[in-house]
Amino acid sequence: MENRLHNFNAGPAALPLPVLEEIKENFLSFRGSGMSITEISHRSPQFEQVLDDAIQRTRRLLDLTDEYHILFIQGGASMQFCMIPMNLALPGKPPSYINTGVWSGKAIREAQQQINGVKVAASSEDRGFSYIPTEYHVDRGTSYLHFTSNNTIKGTQWHQFPDGDGVPLVADMSSDFMSRPIGIKPFGVIYAGAQKNLGPSGIAMVVIREDMLSRVPDNLPSMLKYTSFKETNSLYNTPPTFTIYVIDLVLTWLEDTIGGLEKIAEINKQKASLIYDVIDESEVYQGTAEPSSRSLMNIVFRFSDENMEERFLVEAEKNGLEGLNGHRSVGGCRASLYNAVTMESAQSLAAFMREFEKSSM
Amino acid sequence: MENRLHNFNAGPAALPLPVLEEIKENFLSFRGSGMSITEISHRSPQFEQVLDDAIQRTRRLLDLTDEYHILFIQGGASMQFCMIPMNLALPGKPPSYINTGVWSGKAIREAQQQINGVKVAASSEDRGFSYIPTEYHVDRGTSYLHFTSNNTIKGTQWHQFPDGDGVPLVADMSSDFMSRPIGIKPFGVIYAGAQKNLGPSGIAMVVIREDMLSRVPDNLPSMLKYTSFKETNSLYNTPPTFTIYVIDLVLTWLEDTIGGLEKIAEINKQKASLIYDVIDESEVYQGTAEPSSRSLMNIVFRFSDENMEERFLVEAEKNGLEGLNGHRSVGGCRASLYNAVTMESAQSLAAFMREFEKSSM
Repeated sequence: MENRLHNFNAGPAALPLPVLEEIKENFLSFRGSGMSITEISHRSPQFEQVLDDAIQRTRRLLDLTDEYHILFIQGGASMQFCMIPMNLALPGKPPSYINTGVWSGKAIREAQQQINGVKVAASSEDRGFSYIPTEYHVDRGTSYLHFTSNNTIKGTQWHQFPDGDGVPLVADMSSDFMSRPIGIKPFGVIYAGAQKNLGPSGIAMVVIREDMLSRVPDNLPSMLKYTSFKETNSLYNTPPTFTIYVIDLVLTWLEDTIGGLEKIAEINKQKASLIYDVIDESEVYQGTAEPSSRSLMNIVFRFSDENMEERFLVEAEKNGLEGLNGHRSVGGCRASLYNAVTMESAQSLAAFMREFEKSSM
Repeated sequence: MENRLHNFNAGPAALPLPVLEEIKENFLSFRGSGMSITEISHRSPQFEQVLDDAIQRTRRLLDLTDEYHILFIQGGASMQFCMIPMNLALPGKPPSYINTGVWSGKAIREAQQQINGVKVAASSEDRGFSYIPTEYHVDRGTSYLHFTSNNTIKGTQWHQFPDGDGVPLVADMSSDFMSRPIGIKPFGVIYAGAQKNLGPSGIAMVVIREDMLSRVPDNLPSMLKYTSFKETNSLYNTPPTFTIYVIDLVLTWLEDTIGGLEKIAEINKQKASLIYDVIDESEVYQGTAEPSSRSLMNIVFRFSDENMEERFLVEAEKNGLEGLNGHRSVGGCRASLYNAVTMESAQSLAAFMREFEKSSM
């Protein structure tokens, strides 16, 4: 058995150990084929089975109707920041965005570059993005309402999604996709970079409603049109086959071993509580997000005494707790508790945090 | 030891067995980190070392001057088909393309969609793309001259690159990149999807000359600008970390085990000769490419008796020879002999072809 760490990386992030073991076990010969999964044609029956399985599992996990299509597109969420307005903004109906932090801001800037009059329906910038806005006005003449469901850097999360009042919602769910059930109905598009809850980096999963596809302009480059991917079942060109294979294994683990999104949501709540409880009872750790907006995925905290931070990070690493430094743009500490981070890892972190506080008093 | 096949897939394709074994060996803990390579941050020192090593090896293998930058961009060669004209076509100077088959044709169509007056400087369509044109006129007022160095579907290859007469060459080298030395000087850009000679699918390597970067328009979406990737050392957003890791291992194998591009070129020549010799001495196999234009990477052949083809493919598969069917658009047979296909695999195929012919007479 390898000496594995407790991995709290923000992404690329921990993957379920049974998934890693299965990849390793079969790496030289995928399902008895005599070839590695990395060496198999994307048009082979073996790979098409993997792709279809990943799609069917996504349908079941998210309880999707046939109205929704599941696409795999290279370039991560950042590529979606430009594809969303290109494909979905209707002439004369500038889209609306809610600004809850760095990633929302990037999505807004990419839209503004293409479209005049992009509306910012709400923002939490006034208090350093420490909360999720509850008041916003959605113009019904807007093409869509975009929001970021979980903010990895500031550690906030939408616990109740915004009400689009009939306007299709478009959500960047990169960092909490598949971490809890969602009601799909108001969504025109959900997209998520894979490297948090789904698999390795290098792909985004896009869930798109049929009516959104009729908005796609004909004159876009083929690789930037959602319709190119829908019409070819994500095989317009060679997709990242290994990445999709790992995603399928992660979805299999989520559906068959964990038991689905209700179950993982309960586990995620428990894991996050372990850490938030330490913070709330502490005199040295300070949570940065307002309690009602706290993320269950990324727990961001600082120290009342700044000198303690560096010592904390050094000690944590010595104790096999990895990836606890905050985003380079804000500093501080961050524990990412995605689906694959085990209860045992969360318990180890909570115990370490209590111990560190005691020893520092 | 696993029971491995002889893999002649056109892409995703064979990878060197020592590379696959190293990935497998270290999959649960990358270089003693206690994390899989798929779980490590793209901004960690461990991953940056991998990225930098891949770049330095590419510099040495291709003998690049500092004028050239090496970028990793998601989306494969198909994404480059639209990024090339977006980034490099100068106003009033429509680019020129040479058409040598399906992939050149796609590159041309994506350019035509964006730019009026794209020039086709030469085409081999008149004889079914069975040859590489030797006569072409390059207008010196053109932004660049684009060509496809190796044509996987028809099995032709440029053995001497076109003369741009001072116009920068832009080449799609997806299927013969790193298979032989190239003189870099006339090239403005070389790009290659990874899944033939470099690694798994899901990325393109782009080699771009400094002066080309000054052409990049400011108003492009960030993910579609070469400058975004150049300024961030390909870390504008989360890159496909596993894929880059495998590419680094493949480049290490190519440089340290094989001994570089002169060496692999000699080996590739020998492998291809084994199969072309069978074809030239045969009464049943017919090469489709004109001999002077034959590809050393993809050997395309048909049968004088069409009924034999299906039997050949079935028998080959029974004998552990995989991936010999031609591209779905043209049928026939194709043996792809990329860098990682061993001499032993080529010998096995040659022996099987001779045996099959004998048994069919």
